[in-house]
Amino acid sequence: MNVGLFGFGRTGRLVAEEIIKDTDCVLQWVVRKSTKNNHEYASDFLGYPKHEQGTFFSMDEATAPGFFERHPVDVIIDFSSTQAVYEYGHAADLGISIVSAISHYEQQEIDYLKALSEKAAVLYSANITLGINFLLVASQILKQIVPHADIEVIEEHFRDKRGVSGSALKIAEKLGLDPKTHINSIRVGGILGRHEVIFGLPNQTIRIAHDIVSRAAFGVGALFAARSLIGSPPGFYTMEGLMRNAIVESIAVKEILS
Amino acid sequence: MNVGLFGFGRTGRLVAEEIIKDTDCVLQWVVRKSTKNNHEYASDFLGYPKHEQGTFFSMDEATAPGFFERHPVDVIIDFSSTQAVYEYGHAADLGISIVSAISHYEQQEIDYLKALSEKAAVLYSANITLGINFLLVASQILKQIVPHADIEVIEEHFRDKRGVSGSALKIAEKLGLDPKTHINSIRVGGILGRHEVIFGLPNQTIRIAHDIVSRAAFGVGALFAARSLIGSPPGFYTMEGLMRNAIVESIAVKEILS
Amino acid sequence: MNVGLFGFGRTGRLVAEEIIKDTDCVLQWVVRKSTKNNHEYASDFLGYPKHEQGTFFSMDEATAPGFFERHPVDVIIDFSSTQAVYEYGHAADLGISIVSAISHYEQQEIDYLKALSEKAAVLYSANITLGINFLLVASQILKQIVPHADIEVIEEHFRDKRGVSGSALKIAEKLGLDPKTHINSIRVGGILGRHEVIFGLPNQTIRIAHDIVSRAAFGVGALFAARSLIGSPPGFYTMEGLMRNAIVESIAVKEILS
Amino acid sequence: MNVGLFGFGRTGRLVAEEIIKDTDCVLQWVVRKSTKNNHEYASDFLGYPKHEQGTFFSMDEATAPGFFERHPVDVIIDFSSTQAVYEYGHAADLGISIVSAISHYEQQEIDYLKALSEKAAVLYSANITLGINFLLVASQILKQIVPHADIEVIEEHFRDKRGVSGSALKIAEKLGLDPKTHINSIRVGGILGRHEVIFGLPNQTIRIAHDIVSRAAFGVGALFAARSLIGSPPGFYTMEGLMRNAIVESIAVKEILS
Repeated sequence: MNVGLFGFGRTGRLVAEEIIKDTDCVLQWVVRKSTKNNHEYASDFLGYPKHEQGTFFSMDEATAPGFFERHPVDVIIDFSSTQAVYEYGHAADLGISIVSAISHYEQQEIDYLKALSEKAAVLYSANITLGINFLLVASQILKQIVPHADIEVIEEHFRDKRGVSGSALKIAEKLGLDPKTHINSIRVGGILGRHEVIFGLPNQTIRIAHDIVSRAAFGVGALFAARSLIGSPPGFYTMEGLMRNAIVESIAVKEILS
Repeated sequence: MNVGLFGFGRTGRLVAEEIIKDTDCVLQWVVRKSTKNNHEYASDFLGYPKHEQGTFFSMDEATAPGFFERHPVDVIIDFSSTQAVYEYGHAADLGISIVSAISHYEQQEIDYLKALSEKAAVLYSANITLGINFLLVASQILKQIVPHADIEVIEEHFRDKRGVSGSALKIAEKLGLDPKTHINSIRVGGILGRHEVIFGLPNQTIRIAHDIVSRAAFGVGALFAARSLIGSPPGFYTMEGLMRNAIVESIAVKEILS
Repeated sequence: MNVGLFGFGRTGRLVAEEIIKDTDCVLQWVVRKSTKNNHEYASDFLGYPKHEQGTFFSMDEATAPGFFERHPVDVIIDFSSTQAVYEYGHAADLGISIVSAISHYEQQEIDYLKALSEKAAVLYSANITLGINFLLVASQILKQIVPHADIEVIEEHFRDKRGVSGSALKIAEKLGLDPKTHINSIRVGGILGRHEVIFGLPNQTIRIAHDIVSRAAFGVGALFAARSLIGSPPGFYTMEGLMRNAIVESIAVKEILS
Repeated sequence: MNVGLFGFGRTGRLVAEEIIKDTDCVLQWVVRKSTKNNHEYASDFLGYPKHEQGTFFSMDEATAPGFFERHPVDVIIDFSSTQAVYEYGHAADLGISIVSAISHYEQQEIDYLKALSEKAAVLYSANITLGINFLLVASQILKQIVPHADIEVIEEHFRDKRGVSGSALKIAEKLGLDPKTHINSIRVGGILGRHEVIFGLPNQTIRIAHDIVSRAAFGVGALFAARSLIGSPPGFYTMEGLMRNAIVESIAVKEILS
């Protein structure tokens, strides 16, 4: 699988590293705002000098006509910023799959991605880790089973994280909770990311929690998503949807659950 | 639904109370070892003097010929002791459903229950709470999705609880874990019952936990089980199986999960 | 130690039971609003028929002149309601110690208790459990040691509990936290009471948490408080102060900590 | 404060980075087994090219006569391996303080460090984070206050960590717990390090927990230790002892706790 990456910030670097380490993938290039060390390998920068992967290109180069034809990839993974989608969107015309893991899009960007999804397989999830999506789907299932349970969400992040976690907002939306009163945001120290959904019944409590140990979790999730899109027809996909399918499949494995 | 209860110990009383409080159920009788206050109402004893439910009978009375014909019920719920099943088993001949929540059966009792299940609907679960069974099934699903995850079980109970929790053993068995090395038993103070399954991936951790707030949770679970059996054909049921069905049903609700 | 109790609600009953079970204590009487079963023993009501402790008196009887002279006790424990303090306050003139565990007092009642404390040993704590007070003092110590840590409080209680937990407010006040932004209140199901203080540093997180397993914890705390007051000079005491003293004493035990 | 560092492995690098970032400290040199990039700056390697700190020296160079005279430092911090202490021990003759954070020493190395402590200030702690030491001291205090509590330790680490955590063993030793039955070791995924001490009472549970967010926590702890030793007389110090002193000081701050 040939991958192109937009974004080389704190998370983007870890994503690049996951792609480079993965023997089934080749990181063809990385598009950055900066032009420093342009055309060098991201793999050198990350301590994998023998891999020679991830040529740095500037945003200007990437938006020049013919970039995706000259530097073809199977999938673009985007960990850069809200606006980047408009720069690489036309890659969908070439059938290149798109995996976007931008935390906060406006409706406008989501609409644009949905338009692209008519031409290529496009996946968008604000939080692309496997864990948070398991939590998201399992919580919805549990709510169906115990509809009278009271539900609260706790999300814990490093002190400087602004706003309510997008994943927590998604969980609240899917569970029909008012985010203003049912999301509890903890901002302390260096916590990478923790989400907990609490289901309270009169006589018992159920908790489902997800902790990020390393931001590389986002890279693993993005690769999982990218692999799922290869060979898939054009359409709009989400990690939640992939997780739902995985649960349906797993529960069908009768010998496991009987 | 007319219910007969075996057992009036610490948990049995809470179960009786749940049945009495439930407006759809009538607790017809309670069979105890003791003959003290025999033929009085359990409801008086539990502070519900107006309900006049749960006539106390001794084990001798309950095992006398014709007891279940003279005191008919839809379902027997058993929170007494390992051996009681042999005393009431012949009720299955009358088509009376059986819900047993005995913590530790030998294989012999399980075989006996399975034989009964050819004549009536029989449900057995060592831990009959909704929560622990959600945890049991959700863990198996998650293991299918992340097969390389490391899994550990922590179970916490009051200091005097002997042996490893039956629920933890069940979880370990279903997840293919060696109980000697992967169940961590905490015995401190008065903790009613806590089970946690930890899934560790290189970059993230998922935890599913269940806390008992009150032993009445067992009563709620037993009533849920009893209701599920009413109208069901003869057969051997488990709470885990009911939970699995509930999950399959819930995930089929497309508008919730899409 | 002879004890008189005001209040026989959900918590009051458990407190009464703790006192009756304690072989060093005698529950002389219980003052209730109700006159039902007046002059009978609370011990009968609670399932300890042989103890013959805790004669029920009505509030009218308790406020009649000479009640405390005719029914002398060493200490009054109050788990009733905000206003009761005005009814038994004059017992301080007789040197009777007072332990109040009312959740929410106005400043007026606290001022009144402080006035009483000139004549007798008076202890007031909104949360009288040992655990919450350890959490309160240990958090203040930790804040001194890591003054740059970010601190958040999570408090979890049953769904119908109104308002923010008094204990959480106390913790916030003592740690200099704005309660509106730093207390996260979870209201779900039947959780008896959980408080957690989270200290976040850039590279590590410390959590101190306290769970109520049974409301009898309040009884144990009240007895601990009552015992501490016996023989103490008049003055205004708090559980937090007793805990602080206990910590100072424990840390002085050199062989433990060296 | 001039610092020399032994060890440049996974944790050693993060420690070096903490020292370089600290404006009050200069990392004079780093001793490594490797001779690759010898005499270059660790700061270059870590992405701080302007700092020019932490000249790499090989172990052979460091053990040559006169090394510490030619490259003087105030304190040596050791995150290398068990045997290194014998190589730099004679630095104590020059009054250089020593901070060792080796996880597992044999008694022989500890005896050697104690001998050195007659000539210089020497601090040894298997776990040098502030958090774990707070947990260690706070647990001992709490045990004094509730001597009848049941106590259990849970320690969680990445799957490949061998043996029981040294910190957990230390906690067990100090609390008088049999490590074989009271330490519960969880080995899953990539958890950096979590320790939890649970105190169970019949009606309440207290938990003190410490999570590592980044191994840089060890660097922060080592710097805290190093600073405490500067100006201190020769002697054998521990982080636990420093923490105990910090607690005694903090509890003396009356206006905070009254």
